[in-house]
Amino acid sequence: MRALRALRPRRLLAMAAAAAAAAAGGVRRGPVLSPECMNPAIRRVEYAVRGPIVVRATELEQELRKGVPKPFTEVIKANIGDAHAMGQQPITFVRQVTALCLCPELMKDASLPSDAKERAQRLLAACAGQSVGAYSASPGVQMVRENVARYIERRDGVPAKADDIFLSTGASDAIVSMLKLLVWGSGSSRTGVLIPIPQYPLYSAALAELDAAQLGYFLAEERCWALDVAELRRALNEGRRRCCPRVLCIINPGNPTGQVQSRECIEDVIKFAYEEKLFLMADEVYQDNVYAEGSAFHSFKKVLMEMGPPYSDSVELASFHSISKGFMGECGLRGGYVEVVNLHPEVKAQLAKLVSVRLCPPVPGQMVLDIIMDPPKPGEPSYERFQAEKEAVLSALAEKARLTQELFNRTPGIHCNPVQGAMYAFPRIDLPPRALAAAKEKKQAPDMFFCMRLLEETGICVVPGSGFGQKEGTYHFRMTILPPTEKLKMLLEKLSAFYTKFVKEFS
Amino acid sequence: MRALRALRPRRLLAMAAAAAAAAAGGVRRGPVLSPECMNPAIRRVEYAVRGPIVVRATELEQELRKGVPKPFTEVIKANIGDAHAMGQQPITFVRQVTALCLCPELMKDASLPSDAKERAQRLLAACAGQSVGAYSASPGVQMVRENVARYIERRDGVPAKADDIFLSTGASDAIVSMLKLLVWGSGSSRTGVLIPIPQYPLYSAALAELDAAQLGYFLAEERCWALDVAELRRALNEGRRRCCPRVLCIINPGNPTGQVQSRECIEDVIKFAYEEKLFLMADEVYQDNVYAEGSAFHSFKKVLMEMGPPYSDSVELASFHSISKGFMGECGLRGGYVEVVNLHPEVKAQLAKLVSVRLCPPVPGQMVLDIIMDPPKPGEPSYERFQAEKEAVLSALAEKARLTQELFNRTPGIHCNPVQGAMYAFPRIDLPPRALAAAKEKKQAPDMFFCMRLLEETGICVVPGSGFGQKEGTYHFRMTILPPTEKLKMLLEKLSAFYTKFVKEFS
Repeated sequence: MRALRALRPRRLLAMAAAAAAAAAGGVRRGPVLSPECMNPAIRRVEYAVRGPIVVRATELEQELRKGVPKPFTEVIKANIGDAHAMGQQPITFVRQVTALCLCPELMKDASLPSDAKERAQRLLAACAGQSVGAYSASPGVQMVRENVARYIERRDGVPAKADDIFLSTGASDAIVSMLKLLVWGSGSSRTGVLIPIPQYPLYSAALAELDAAQLGYFLAEERCWALDVAELRRALNEGRRRCCPRVLCIINPGNPTGQVQSRECIEDVIKFAYEEKLFLMADEVYQDNVYAEGSAFHSFKKVLMEMGPPYSDSVELASFHSISKGFMGECGLRGGYVEVVNLHPEVKAQLAKLVSVRLCPPVPGQMVLDIIMDPPKPGEPSYERFQAEKEAVLSALAEKARLTQELFNRTPGIHCNPVQGAMYAFPRIDLPPRALAAAKEKKQAPDMFFCMRLLEETGICVVPGSGFGQKEGTYHFRMTILPPTEKLKMLLEKLSAFYTKFVKEFS
Repeated sequence: MRALRALRPRRLLAMAAAAAAAAAGGVRRGPVLSPECMNPAIRRVEYAVRGPIVVRATELEQELRKGVPKPFTEVIKANIGDAHAMGQQPITFVRQVTALCLCPELMKDASLPSDAKERAQRLLAACAGQSVGAYSASPGVQMVRENVARYIERRDGVPAKADDIFLSTGASDAIVSMLKLLVWGSGSSRTGVLIPIPQYPLYSAALAELDAAQLGYFLAEERCWALDVAELRRALNEGRRRCCPRVLCIINPGNPTGQVQSRECIEDVIKFAYEEKLFLMADEVYQDNVYAEGSAFHSFKKVLMEMGPPYSDSVELASFHSISKGFMGECGLRGGYVEVVNLHPEVKAQLAKLVSVRLCPPVPGQMVLDIIMDPPKPGEPSYERFQAEKEAVLSALAEKARLTQELFNRTPGIHCNPVQGAMYAFPRIDLPPRALAAAKEKKQAPDMFFCMRLLEETGICVVPGSGFGQKEGTYHFRMTILPPTEKLKMLLEKLSAFYTKFVKEFS
């Protein structure tokens, strides 16, 4: 305040000078960086999950806070997989260890368990200067990379090397780093990247930014969003006419679609990648989020290795994981990793060089990753609590996945596949022709029109299917299943009721 | 271990199958991502600060650990501005608050001061779900952005708006985001970016990756690395023949050169940017690190605003700051911000969209930034300790800056400008012709040859000047002044002695 008061006379002076210049008819220099002359690739980037609907939701929250009357008392942001924002509590051990790493004087706090202190001590010993405030090695703290490799070995039953693990600032960061190595060229030699439709919009955004050709392959909604190799082949052949397809991205469990791929399907995809000379990128950040009976997570790495040669020693694979999802949901700490398999050693050195330009991933996120990869063991003081907290989150999610599908399908016109995994429902909604016409008049995609109306009338924020991609003439939205069960029920009922009213209005 | 033992039979089986395939003369499919067909822009990226010399230093550390005999007992990594790695202790209040944010059950710990608890409570209230594990808004937590704006107002005496502040994953991240908006085009319309020579290699690396034209302007070593507008003009005019120069990057205080720009020089640069229609990027991460008598930090924002129209309302400026440097040195937490000034509102919206694709900067780093921007006030329980710790770090740095210059200049053939600010010395070294010839034979830059020999014989790791750029025929290295005073003295003496011996060897 003192500073502001002090500067007032100077401000007035500057304002007066500006007014004088304007009065004198002085021509103002136009900007260097105008909307017309900025990088056109960035203009093309779209990111629906934090797009216009979320901007509007944030505005509505501010209006509510100012007392503007609305037909709802709370904005519910079901647009993003953000567990803690929805009230999920962090895993106690994760936070105790991270706090101890940040503030080692807490080692004397008697209320913190001994295994948390031991873990923090081990992690600090692995940091330069014993501080999480020092840069780590660019691919991550060596001890954490080794714990990731051991986790992968336990998960897959096949060997893994710390040297193939690169820690990252969330999975998004690692995905973009891999794409940077892979994408180049222009015209018919421009790199083409196969991505599922519907997709997670990080992919379309990154491809737009890097100026790659996006080649969408449709998941089969009628077969619970299954991946079909014939459809992959169609997309590839079509792509070959206009670019050079070199990468195949898979999201398993699916985002936004929630399907869990069968082992057989993964084998087919690997054979396809081998035959067609495609680099495989497997987004496996929801590997701990599998709920449906009969569904199980199979990592691409495990299946690839078990297929043996020529697949296991030649198909190049990058598999991504994150601390933002699973049962811990530590989105804000920005941690993740990529494991590279069969990557050419010189290219691996180039990857190491590329990540070194950003110095290192955030160290607290690396600490959290270490704990998730190497959780407390039976007999250790924090084991029971860690397991109980983990199981509570995962079983609640399974219940919410079931509930969501069930409640949506009760409403005529809403069609929701089983949520086998991940954290979202992606129901299809029938929209009457008059609603399509009204959307067209507003120059909005029909599902954007629906979602905007939903937001304005109920405060519920979900993301239109058009942000993820969908078959023409079909309409969807993505909603997280993360709110607490009772709130989720209320949300599903409100949303369904709004849908019924909306259809009636436009019939 | 159990998992590994279990998988052995399968491994043996796979190995046997591979051997059989090889024996049968099966042709292995070549890689999709080979060194020859990766993105050539990434191949061109170089990042000296973590380049080959650091790779070798890390190898030497491992060799020492294995007991391989060396002419030294410790590798000293003076290649990077990493205060905690050099033994600097974190600021207590910073760590107490961050630990409390991560583990709110510590609110009941009686040993933690009340103002740390209050700050943590305020910060948590500003996070979704009251958790640092939730994503923040993409440009950062609103409360932190507001505290940054108030800090800038106190620093500059001119208004600042939270809306112009974008928090980031360290300053590097924000610098690259701004460049992404600015750089595009090819051939003669390719964006040209003026950067100082010597420069911090993030710039050359980012420009290589984004395929911009790098236009180097030389700092005047003979005038303590001063920036000369005539030289800027030379570089610009030369650049105009081959590209479209649109951006001017300034590093003040200088990295690696340590100079602090005068207010007059900043005014000249702003006028130049106005006349030549250049977008200004001011890397001001060392703003708290000014040591020399008569030197003072002047922010580009302050000078620009005080110059009044037409400059203050038209010159576009992005100013960068970081939590990695200053007196806190929290490199591992990856926090920073950019303030944009006179940015076109639509471009600002595009920047907001671009940063949203990476979701948000690490939240613990945002908490640290908040504390640095809004430190404890007089009368609050942590005020005295915070101030004392801050002053201790800064006065030790000032002493080390003086010491470094003094000791280097005692050795004939080493020429070191005063370290007015930042954290590095960048001395020039005379190298005898026979050393140049020996380097040529090894296909190494002469200063790389010197630095590699220094590393192998003394364990001291510094970065060759060629990684930062220098006038042809001159040779330098960059060394941080961060080691504890006694160790730094020893380092400087060892380095000087090695230089003398090296010169003798090649004379």
